[in-house]
Amino acid sequence: MRYRLEAGTLIVPDQDGSVIRHGQITWEGQEILTVGPLDENAPPVDQVIQIPHGIVMPGLYNGHNHAAMTLLRGYADDSPFFEWLQTHILPAEAQLTSEDIYWGTLLAAAEMIRSGTVGFADMYFEVDAVAEAVMRSGLRSWISRGLVGDDDPTRTKLQESLDWASRWRQRGDGRIIPMLGPHAPYTCDPDYLRDVAQAARAEDLGIHIHLAESEDEIHLLKQRYNKSPAEIALETGILENRVLIAHGIHFSDDDLKVLQRHLTGGIISCPVSNAKLGNGILPFQKIQDHQIPVGLGSDGAASTNTLDMFQEMKAMAWLQKVRTHEPHRFTAKDALKTATTGTASVLGSDGGILAAGHPADFIVVDGSRTHLTPEWDVIANLVYAATGADVSYTVVAGQILMAEGIITAFDESEVQHQVRDRTRRLSGGAHGGL
Amino acid sequence: MRYRLEAGTLIVPDQDGSVIRHGQITWEGQEILTVGPLDENAPPVDQVIQIPHGIVMPGLYNGHNHAAMTLLRGYADDSPFFEWLQTHILPAEAQLTSEDIYWGTLLAAAEMIRSGTVGFADMYFEVDAVAEAVMRSGLRSWISRGLVGDDDPTRTKLQESLDWASRWRQRGDGRIIPMLGPHAPYTCDPDYLRDVAQAARAEDLGIHIHLAESEDEIHLLKQRYNKSPAEIALETGILENRVLIAHGIHFSDDDLKVLQRHLTGGIISCPVSNAKLGNGILPFQKIQDHQIPVGLGSDGAASTNTLDMFQEMKAMAWLQKVRTHEPHRFTAKDALKTATTGTASVLGSDGGILAAGHPADFIVVDGSRTHLTPEWDVIANLVYAATGADVSYTVVAGQILMAEGIITAFDESEVQHQVRDRTRRLSGGAHGGL
Repeated sequence: MRYRLEAGTLIVPDQDGSVIRHGQITWEGQEILTVGPLDENAPPVDQVIQIPHGIVMPGLYNGHNHAAMTLLRGYADDSPFFEWLQTHILPAEAQLTSEDIYWGTLLAAAEMIRSGTVGFADMYFEVDAVAEAVMRSGLRSWISRGLVGDDDPTRTKLQESLDWASRWRQRGDGRIIPMLGPHAPYTCDPDYLRDVAQAARAEDLGIHIHLAESEDEIHLLKQRYNKSPAEIALETGILENRVLIAHGIHFSDDDLKVLQRHLTGGIISCPVSNAKLGNGILPFQKIQDHQIPVGLGSDGAASTNTLDMFQEMKAMAWLQKVRTHEPHRFTAKDALKTATTGTASVLGSDGGILAAGHPADFIVVDGSRTHLTPEWDVIANLVYAATGADVSYTVVAGQILMAEGIITAFDESEVQHQVRDRTRRLSGGAHGGL
Repeated sequence: MRYRLEAGTLIVPDQDGSVIRHGQITWEGQEILTVGPLDENAPPVDQVIQIPHGIVMPGLYNGHNHAAMTLLRGYADDSPFFEWLQTHILPAEAQLTSEDIYWGTLLAAAEMIRSGTVGFADMYFEVDAVAEAVMRSGLRSWISRGLVGDDDPTRTKLQESLDWASRWRQRGDGRIIPMLGPHAPYTCDPDYLRDVAQAARAEDLGIHIHLAESEDEIHLLKQRYNKSPAEIALETGILENRVLIAHGIHFSDDDLKVLQRHLTGGIISCPVSNAKLGNGILPFQKIQDHQIPVGLGSDGAASTNTLDMFQEMKAMAWLQKVRTHEPHRFTAKDALKTATTGTASVLGSDGGILAAGHPADFIVVDGSRTHLTPEWDVIANLVYAATGADVSYTVVAGQILMAEGIITAFDESEVQHQVRDRTRRLSGGAHGGL
């Protein structure tokens, strides 16, 4: 089936400043066929969609998520980090069934589709449930099971992860890319990381890992191994694979040199999570000076509360400007690039671009909203004024997952209902879960 | 006419942690009559509104705005501050007519009503047009004309401001509170500030002033007068009036002692503007230690891009946490208080509280949205997950300005149309204004 979408504005962010007024995009199957000005003599298609006030732009990629943690949204906010994790989150997670995780992931998917996210990298457990939810949702996902070395002395979980990966490589219809997810160097010792790195190489799998998220982590690794996060990643062979580094805010200059030389992949910045948990602000300029790709992620909803990548773009721009005291640094275009081609390139995808031959992953923002009026600069409006709530259409791999603000891929209210019921059970009525 | 609104949840933030499940609020004229659990034997009213999934909460107050600057939303983003102001904003403002400002203010009003703001403090020019727009919108406003000392050697503009104030005190129906608006100590010399302070005392008017917004300002005042912003405010008599201090991020410890002793009013923090313009982060804890009230504002849309106070609550919490590296500091409740009773107390209003006898200024958030599911902690959801787009009802001074997402007070699309036409004229077609 071949589609044409005609809209007031198309954003083509691979070419600097490229905005097409009164344009059209056509696609078939999973791929974009053409992008350009309206053409009355264009060949016929099966379906034409006209959105005069629509702004068509590449869909956003969320490079670091724990999607099912929507189940714990607002569960323990404003706690010190270790209390949050040890006293609240881990005991709650211990109660989650694979069905809970299926519905929690699907709720996250609904939220992502609503807010213009077309693909996400996930690290969680019960990854069959995660993958089933992704399949049903229509989104793309780079999925990994979080592996903790101490819990896996016999490498059983690593082996399960590999078996799972080879199954879903086949089943995922190109929309599911399995990865390996060693949690972090402070929860996986060097021997374990070595085994993961070797398995990843053997099976040609990317690696998703938390690295240099907090100053405590740096001190702990120094104390325990007398090494930095990048040294550990290099020496264990992790860097011989494509690596998605989540957070990456506390790398030393030497670390950055190591990454510049050895890293394929890049850093996914999670500005809201890093600010809200008090961990810090990514030194973006320095990382760019080392030619390390940077993408954007939300982290889990238990810490970030929403999965709206428009919010992450804003937060990243504000935080970069206040960090450097230079308001002309990290422009709206930089934010948009980070959330589109930035994340896609970390993931090894050619998404994030509206151009022929690229994946048909795009969204439409309703440009007729009051807070997007007037329109001096459409990119500034999208980054600084729009929110996920302004997205009216979400298209992933050529499939329309939301049209006119209605999710067509699955029953959103059933998902809400399931999540409310399940969290009521979790709380045992005690915690006030609705 | 007497109303009763029955809703799933009512937030009563004056009492810590007070959330009423299955509650009702009744009001008549401009005042709240009762707030409490659903009562089947409640006396009859003229209109009952039932919103089972609604979360009724106090409306948000925006303590620092230049509302008509919506006309310049996105006009010159990502420029260094002085280039932004001198090269772009001031020349554009010089072209604005009073009719432009009327429509720009009304566009801001539509945006504020949509995003749950019930009242705002404004500083701009053509204040008759501002006040007319506020009257038509149904919002509350604390309005001042921005006064620049150098432009007013004969005090003509100060006198016009006083005449305007005495007129609108009568006409404003209690919804318009005129103030005097000396722009800042670096644009108004001490003699001018003395004259403003004296006039304010004589006419019993509050003062709205930018103070300690940037480090450059501190250096400039030191160089020019060998004084700090608070010393100037004290010595010119400004502090003998109620004062709304916009920004206030760069006060010294001595300054804070002066303000603790002499200030009636308080500081309005504008976290997004301060971050985006690279000016810094309010030292909230230190200001609270000096018992100085703190409220929340957006600043103008030319720098902040949107007027969504839910966004400001989030930004303030994130920035306070990343500034202190203490995630348990500045909780969701602190953010909500700052945007409700905090701003109201700076303004000398008893709004921001759902209780009998207080102004009927409140909003309803649609709790059925996916990104507000589940609901472990309704305050965390409101602050960290909701946006202005989740507001379904806005009630100001007892009048329903928006119902089910439709603005009933005026024709929103006419306002958009006017603003688009007028900015097209401003741009002369050259700047790409839509």
